[in-house]
Amino acid sequence: MSDDRYMRLAIEQARIGLSEGGIPIGAALVADGEVLGVGRNRRVQEGSAIRHGETDCLENAGRLPARVYRKSTLYTTLSPCHLCAGAVLLYGIPRVVIGENRTFTASEGLLRQHGVELVVLDLDECVQMMREFIAANPALWNEDIGVED
Amino acid sequence: MSDDRYMRLAIEQARIGLSEGGIPIGAALVADGEVLGVGRNRRVQEGSAIRHGETDCLENAGRLPARVYRKSTLYTTLSPCHLCAGAVLLYGIPRVVIGENRTFTASEGLLRQHGVELVVLDLDECVQMMREFIAANPALWNEDIGVED
Repeated sequence: MSDDRYMRLAIEQARIGLSEGGIPIGAALVADGEVLGVGRNRRVQEGSAIRHGETDCLENAGRLPARVYRKSTLYTTLSPCHLCAGAVLLYGIPRVVIGENRTFTASEGLLRQHGVELVVLDLDECVQMMREFIAANPALWNEDIGVED
Repeated sequence: MSDDRYMRLAIEQARIGLSEGGIPIGAALVADGEVLGVGRNRRVQEGSAIRHGETDCLENAGRLPARVYRKSTLYTTLSPCHLCAGAVLLYGIPRVVIGENRTFTASEGLLRQHGVELVVLDLDECVQMMREFIAANPALWNEDIGVED
């Protein structure tokens, strides 16, 4: 199943992020079977406040016309925060495949309200990666999701 | 009035962007009278899909704890798109001051639903800057807001 294959790219990005000391969330943007970009959370690596997994992926995919976004699927290891959901809405990305939404969820209702198709794979591998990271780095995680310690 | 003063910083950023050949939208983030960052749309300048005025400003302000965002005001020359509104919601920024919302509006309802205070200054200077830019660069503008030509 190709959703599983593209989610592997997102998970691979998350694991690269973890190995860099970063927050393990990864993403991939795919249209017509072509991988347009991959990315990962770079808060730690680049001191970034806006490079979440999904936004880093969109940045790496580069400038694209609306017609490409509108036939694409965004794969992300973790349910999108409002920033990343906003990127999906801005560009009219019609479909988001989510590794897991047990450790975090914020925007799924908003995305569905706007007609975005969500597929939650509920992968134990993604849940475990986030649980271990959050337990070891609670302050960093709170910073990434805008929560006060 | 200090809102006017900080909006001047956002307008100055928009004008710098225009002089660089970019899309003239600028922003500033302010807390307790301190300017934490300024930014401008860098789609053209950096080939960026995610550096809108507001997100570039947040990136330039750097990594901040939630308690700082939660006492800050974001100044932007143009009413926020969904990406930038998502950034406001992610970080719990309680107040957004908008130069104008006549040439574009997308997320004001969403922001208000989440309790964000919006102040629309309705500045002719901002309206004119966007109108002239959009008339001269319709394809670039459509790309920036995810609209098909």
